[in-house]
Amino acid sequence: MRHTVRLHALAACVALAFSAHAAARDTVIPDKAVAAATALRDRAMNDITGYDFVAGLTTEVGPRLAGSAADKRGVEWTVAKFKAMGFDKVYTEKVSYPLWERRSEHAQIVAPYPQPLAVTALGYSAGTPAGGLTAQVVAFDDLAALKAADPATVKGKIVYVSTHMTPQKDGHDYGMGSATRTAGAVVAAKMGAVAYLLRSAGTDPHSRTPHTGVTGFKDPAEAIPAAALSLPDADQLERVVKSGKPVTLKLDLDVGFKGTYQGENVIAEVTGRKHPDEVVAIGGHLDSWDLGTGAIDDGAGVAIAAAAAKLIKDMPQRPDRTIRVIAFANEEMGLWGGRAYADAHAKEVSTFQLGTESDFGAGRVWRMTASVKPEARNAIAQIAKVLEPIGVAYDASRPGGGGSDLSQMHAKGMAALSLTQDGTNYFDYHHNANDTLDKIDPKDLAQNVAVYAAFAYMAAQADGNFGSAPGAFANDGAHD
Amino acid sequence: MRHTVRLHALAACVALAFSAHAAARDTVIPDKAVAAATALRDRAMNDITGYDFVAGLTTEVGPRLAGSAADKRGVEWTVAKFKAMGFDKVYTEKVSYPLWERRSEHAQIVAPYPQPLAVTALGYSAGTPAGGLTAQVVAFDDLAALKAADPATVKGKIVYVSTHMTPQKDGHDYGMGSATRTAGAVVAAKMGAVAYLLRSAGTDPHSRTPHTGVTGFKDPAEAIPAAALSLPDADQLERVVKSGKPVTLKLDLDVGFKGTYQGENVIAEVTGRKHPDEVVAIGGHLDSWDLGTGAIDDGAGVAIAAAAAKLIKDMPQRPDRTIRVIAFANEEMGLWGGRAYADAHAKEVSTFQLGTESDFGAGRVWRMTASVKPEARNAIAQIAKVLEPIGVAYDASRPGGGGSDLSQMHAKGMAALSLTQDGTNYFDYHHNANDTLDKIDPKDLAQNVAVYAAFAYMAAQADGNFGSAPGAFANDGAHD
Repeated sequence: MRHTVRLHALAACVALAFSAHAAARDTVIPDKAVAAATALRDRAMNDITGYDFVAGLTTEVGPRLAGSAADKRGVEWTVAKFKAMGFDKVYTEKVSYPLWERRSEHAQIVAPYPQPLAVTALGYSAGTPAGGLTAQVVAFDDLAALKAADPATVKGKIVYVSTHMTPQKDGHDYGMGSATRTAGAVVAAKMGAVAYLLRSAGTDPHSRTPHTGVTGFKDPAEAIPAAALSLPDADQLERVVKSGKPVTLKLDLDVGFKGTYQGENVIAEVTGRKHPDEVVAIGGHLDSWDLGTGAIDDGAGVAIAAAAAKLIKDMPQRPDRTIRVIAFANEEMGLWGGRAYADAHAKEVSTFQLGTESDFGAGRVWRMTASVKPEARNAIAQIAKVLEPIGVAYDASRPGGGGSDLSQMHAKGMAALSLTQDGTNYFDYHHNANDTLDKIDPKDLAQNVAVYAAFAYMAAQADGNFGSAPGAFANDGAHD
Repeated sequence: MRHTVRLHALAACVALAFSAHAAARDTVIPDKAVAAATALRDRAMNDITGYDFVAGLTTEVGPRLAGSAADKRGVEWTVAKFKAMGFDKVYTEKVSYPLWERRSEHAQIVAPYPQPLAVTALGYSAGTPAGGLTAQVVAFDDLAALKAADPATVKGKIVYVSTHMTPQKDGHDYGMGSATRTAGAVVAAKMGAVAYLLRSAGTDPHSRTPHTGVTGFKDPAEAIPAAALSLPDADQLERVVKSGKPVTLKLDLDVGFKGTYQGENVIAEVTGRKHPDEVVAIGGHLDSWDLGTGAIDDGAGVAIAAAAAKLIKDMPQRPDRTIRVIAFANEEMGLWGGRAYADAHAKEVSTFQLGTESDFGAGRVWRMTASVKPEARNAIAQIAKVLEPIGVAYDASRPGGGGSDLSQMHAKGMAALSLTQDGTNYFDYHHNANDTLDKIDPKDLAQNVAVYAAFAYMAAQADGNFGSAPGAFANDGAHD
């Protein structure tokens, strides 16, 4: 009997475990919360709050280069918008960073075939002397070739480095492309180059819109003039180089460092009903490069997070935990907002239930990955089950990094998701003049809002946490 | 018997007529010429002479704004190239026209939402006062709405007119688009506007590259500042206008007339063996707008004509008549090269066997139409039969206009073809920065060369002419 009883008890336990998909100590999303999140998801799929937000931000503010007058207007616009949306709290937190300005930029082939080139200066580039800088070009096929070169062949020259990115759903070529931009400029400067020029880290072979982006220069003393050519202009320069004749370029970049600027992370909250101090953190970055209007990078991210929180706020009652939307300052020149935030809030890391940021455009989310404690894996699977019908596949084999700025909180120990968007076209428009509202499909954006709203709500309602703790996930290999 | 004999004779005549597709007095392409043209066509389809030409011109010269230093280099490059290609004659003919310069151009929304706009000045635009011009905007949905407006609502304002072109194989929306640009500027000026701005006459909704093009201003006294916004910028301005708030723009255009320039049509010939003074005229225009490198408009056209003539020159013996390649000067600002050519050669119009110009990009030729005398229709059908296997359909119901510059010789009485290219993507790149070499598919270009080589050779070898005479075809309704 006893034996039988024990077997029955075990069977009951196993049945319970499987029925709830969770052992007793596991984090669980209550059935009621799953049902509410499912309805929330379906509402969000047909909601235009997100699109209206990004249309407003990109139309009424436009480009928002960190530290510019437009950036300040963007902060004011977002504070006013968050208040108008009725969030329970709206506030800002200071973020200091070096101010870098772009005033004008020109490039031309001087010899052998004089003609203008479409160019844009890179973040933290030095300016050229007034009137421009003229020098011979030395060209390399890729960053490795530059690194392998004899510095004597580079000294006093304009270094040009090619890159070739292929459009990909997960955009993984950008690792190589951005390294060519950030590290390449530093390598060239150390080798004695007078300027650095790269084929844009982009995937639009037919567009004369060069892609900007930050360099790895850490202070004005090490910076040299650094810029990117559009892909057709890079083709043109490469054809001229192939002619075998010496190639002379003139760069005229009126850009540079200009002291320190104090910007702001803009934060809005839906205050938790039961655990107001426990936080689900979502967001995007408010700054943009100045060439476009910062629609896909990253007006969309802020809009997705804000719209998701607004839809949760509009539910019959507040969620158990707080939903915090963070519009980060100056992500573009080195995660300044994200690092300031993580530094200021490191001690509270255990109160961050779960977090992730949207910063990969406005394409649909197709993959969810997570860095959470083992006992929260079933809760993640519950979230995945709600997201699966709208095209999101859960890949349990990969970590979740939390996105660009929130990667810094993840590095402190915040449990994090990665909600990977379809970036097939992202690097056509990324960091160039073509990053404008017309690149956003309202239905695709709504799918993102649905994903963020549903996951954030379920995380806020969970029985149990996802494992945030100081130093947790330190070695999870996340790359966000 | 006699009766029978007569019937037999008639039947024989009918059979002859149908077998040769020609009555006794009709122009005929000899069978040997048809066979040679067929072989020429097939050689051209795999030849890279045309692509090499346009790659060289756009790389080694680049943009060629009429009257600029680059235009002069373009003339020198083309003379040298034609000589290197081994043509029997290479010469130039003078073309005078008003010089118009573009030095710099900027636009911004001043209120209610300050931000820059991507703008380009239009040909023959006046410059703004130094430091720019700031005024309120009055917006119209189309040119008809502007024309119908009360001038009091326009006076002292910046007039903005929208246009919406759809991509089409034959590009017919450009009629409306170019009228909005050319006539719109003049209408606005006459109504007292201080400046004219249009949504670019283009079909690339996602590109921040505004499309330039000439206005209808005939002299500096009537010109006002006139410019085009890229399509995304036009969307942006239209959204701001829709907000209902007064919209103020600042335009800063450093452009304008600067006296008279003497340019050159560049001409190369393969001298006819039997009738050197009878001419098959083909060509394109050598000038381009300055924003791109003039690859599809119209490096391609010059390249197609030059390559076709070169392939004919390389045949075992010279053709019966002369093949003349004309690279026209300053087509873009009003057919200056074409008009000068027609004025200079009007008296020789009867010696022009047949002519047409390529100026609609580098897409494949898909339609042939002709304005020729009725007795030359069968010869045109013979040409069509050679072109049909490479995708060209003969539409006998439409006239042939001779292309842009050669329309002027056609207007004097030159028999002419139209060889219509696939222009589906043409207005994505036309007159903007994206008109660069990468837009040309070498195989498509080779098909054009095949069409031009085959038709020009057959016209040169024809027994009989195509009806060129002073005043012929005056009412054929051709629109080229």
